[in-house]
Amino acid sequence: MIYLDHAASTPIIYSALKVYNKSLVEDYANSSSKHLLGANLNKRVEEVRKYFLSEVHANANGNGNANYSLIFTSSATESNNMIINSLDKNGFIKEGEGNIVYYSKADHPSITAAITNIFGKKCDCDFRDISSFVDEDADKIKLVILSQVNNHSGKFTDVCDATRKIKKINPNVFIHVDAAQGFGKFKLDLSDGNIDSVTTSSHKMGGPKGVALLYYQKKFQKKTSLPLWPLLWGGEQESGYRSSSVNAPAIFSFQEAYKWAKQNMQTNYDNIYKINLAVRKSLSENRIKFPLQFPFALSECSPYILTMIAPNVPADILQRHLEEKNIFVSTTSACSSKKKSSDESQKLLYNSLNIPLAFHKNVLRVSFGFTTTESEVDQFINDFNQIYNDLLKIF
Amino acid sequence: MIYLDHAASTPIIYSALKVYNKSLVEDYANSSSKHLLGANLNKRVEEVRKYFLSEVHANANGNGNANYSLIFTSSATESNNMIINSLDKNGFIKEGEGNIVYYSKADHPSITAAITNIFGKKCDCDFRDISSFVDEDADKIKLVILSQVNNHSGKFTDVCDATRKIKKINPNVFIHVDAAQGFGKFKLDLSDGNIDSVTTSSHKMGGPKGVALLYYQKKFQKKTSLPLWPLLWGGEQESGYRSSSVNAPAIFSFQEAYKWAKQNMQTNYDNIYKINLAVRKSLSENRIKFPLQFPFALSECSPYILTMIAPNVPADILQRHLEEKNIFVSTTSACSSKKKSSDESQKLLYNSLNIPLAFHKNVLRVSFGFTTTESEVDQFINDFNQIYNDLLKIF
Repeated sequence: MIYLDHAASTPIIYSALKVYNKSLVEDYANSSSKHLLGANLNKRVEEVRKYFLSEVHANANGNGNANYSLIFTSSATESNNMIINSLDKNGFIKEGEGNIVYYSKADHPSITAAITNIFGKKCDCDFRDISSFVDEDADKIKLVILSQVNNHSGKFTDVCDATRKIKKINPNVFIHVDAAQGFGKFKLDLSDGNIDSVTTSSHKMGGPKGVALLYYQKKFQKKTSLPLWPLLWGGEQESGYRSSSVNAPAIFSFQEAYKWAKQNMQTNYDNIYKINLAVRKSLSENRIKFPLQFPFALSECSPYILTMIAPNVPADILQRHLEEKNIFVSTTSACSSKKKSSDESQKLLYNSLNIPLAFHKNVLRVSFGFTTTESEVDQFINDFNQIYNDLLKIF
Repeated sequence: MIYLDHAASTPIIYSALKVYNKSLVEDYANSSSKHLLGANLNKRVEEVRKYFLSEVHANANGNGNANYSLIFTSSATESNNMIINSLDKNGFIKEGEGNIVYYSKADHPSITAAITNIFGKKCDCDFRDISSFVDEDADKIKLVILSQVNNHSGKFTDVCDATRKIKKINPNVFIHVDAAQGFGKFKLDLSDGNIDSVTTSSHKMGGPKGVALLYYQKKFQKKTSLPLWPLLWGGEQESGYRSSSVNAPAIFSFQEAYKWAKQNMQTNYDNIYKINLAVRKSLSENRIKFPLQFPFALSECSPYILTMIAPNVPADILQRHLEEKNIFVSTTSACSSKKKSSDESQKLLYNSLNIPLAFHKNVLRVSFGFTTTESEVDQFINDFNQIYNDLLKIF
């Protein structure tokens, strides 16, 4: 089997699996319990919190107080929703103010759908695509959402650089970064304090499902009475921002996966870059009549995601034929698979990805993981070429 | 070590651990992915959904259409919040209508805090304690929340019987049942259709943390345009009600834990009943001056939870001394441990538990699990008696 849908979800890293299994057995207490078992578990969770904060240089001022806090959530979707809901509930984005919100229609649905459903109907914000960012009306810009790695196209944004530029034209803009596809694969540095909140995922980088992070800036806390607004009320875990019994085993496993990913970050990147380049090159060669198109150059992208247009053959047919060869790729991101391609939101998405209407049904996403090997990719290239050429005779 | 805080969280059942571990390795795909790996995973998740629906006789009408649906959430807290938020968002509980809501101040904080924070500030509902339930103003009663097993006191409510009586006086009341402490330990039967929604937990009954259920009645769906209101917007998983990559491994493990618990339900109950009785009896004997008090008789309670009042000695001191003997009990539920006992909400909680003000600092909760043995409990009884008697000389 050749699994090339790692951006949807990737196998758990072996050391993270071991940690999870051990913790499931040993750490059965509730970390909110006052007794020693609970307290010790809570202490270990707090150590993981400190670890993840230090990994992004969250306390760079060196005054002993971290500039950022983080809460453990159940998913990147929850983290993204939490920020958007908080900005709404705390009155940061007000009704009838003509605020400008920059994001991308190609952001993950947990951003686009949250914006539509939480902000959309109640305020007359001017929602603009980040690709059309201009510093006109800079004082009206309230919120900018940036995806470090776009989950559909793989497009990479240097979020440090982008936020610096945005804060320069208006320091009061709230900047949220969705790093779900980038965490553990690219460096994330919060030391300059320009980013206000960050979503990361565990299962997109070799940790288990059911856990994610939300970093948020404490500075923001001072501006408003409450920076975050709980989606879940109850036992006041996670500083009161996220009630629910703390999923300690998943948190420990996530940390272990991150440690491995961090340690191998450059090696992994180099391997996957080479693989991505090879696929682009091999699939493009000798295609005079129906050249494959890559909406974004490798230099613009995370090498872990390769989105391509295969003209004339519907992507779902290609996907099914590859499936028969035990090769698994995606026609769209898993999180958008429930939506119909005729949906207006899907059209906007493809527009935002620079994919012309004529090709909306011809988009394949191939995504690589830490375990992806050159020989798997060679096999994919061979099979793809054969299948595509055969299908071109029919379509 | 003798762990007697199972109501806070209980060890994972061995077969559920095995299933989790296997699924973490094998089921790494995203169940929303359109390819075969995703589709097969999705199919297996849907089978678990059907299983959990059939376990509570959710399709008793025999017409092939289940009367209930269920969604997988990340925690019982999320399930409780989801229902309360939905009733608010869908206008079921409206502002300024003088509706009556019955619940208990001793319900889990995910109910009491959600009511306070979601309903509390925006409507002039009359919030009454369920213990004072009367059929006066029956037509004004909009919502009743029942805990099958109270997590502080262990008090058991026959939810089938209670809901039948309530629906008789007003069939339009929405009845939500929090079965987090009862699921897998007591039968839950939705066949008469009186219960509108049910929360269950996994990690309180030997499954992993990070997964829970929310049953909801489809009938309700017809009354309003949308019965549930998503807390999380995004990829539209769980029929659009709960976006986030589906945590399939946790779901499979939860099912396995439930299967074991169900198969052993009567044996477990009989064992724990005997154990609870023995603790009550042994701790009561020969205490003429400072008799231990049990706010609720065993006949009123789930035997898995035993709440007692130890007069004159603060419960946290008792807890610490037991801890030194490697025995772990609770002074309060883990989910309330972050709240100060001086809080008004804590006072209301104890009032609701029939615990006089003078004893608010003397409450110990001992809770048993499937793994609790008679010899563990004998040791607890011996150590408790010795510690308590020694401390009585000081206090």
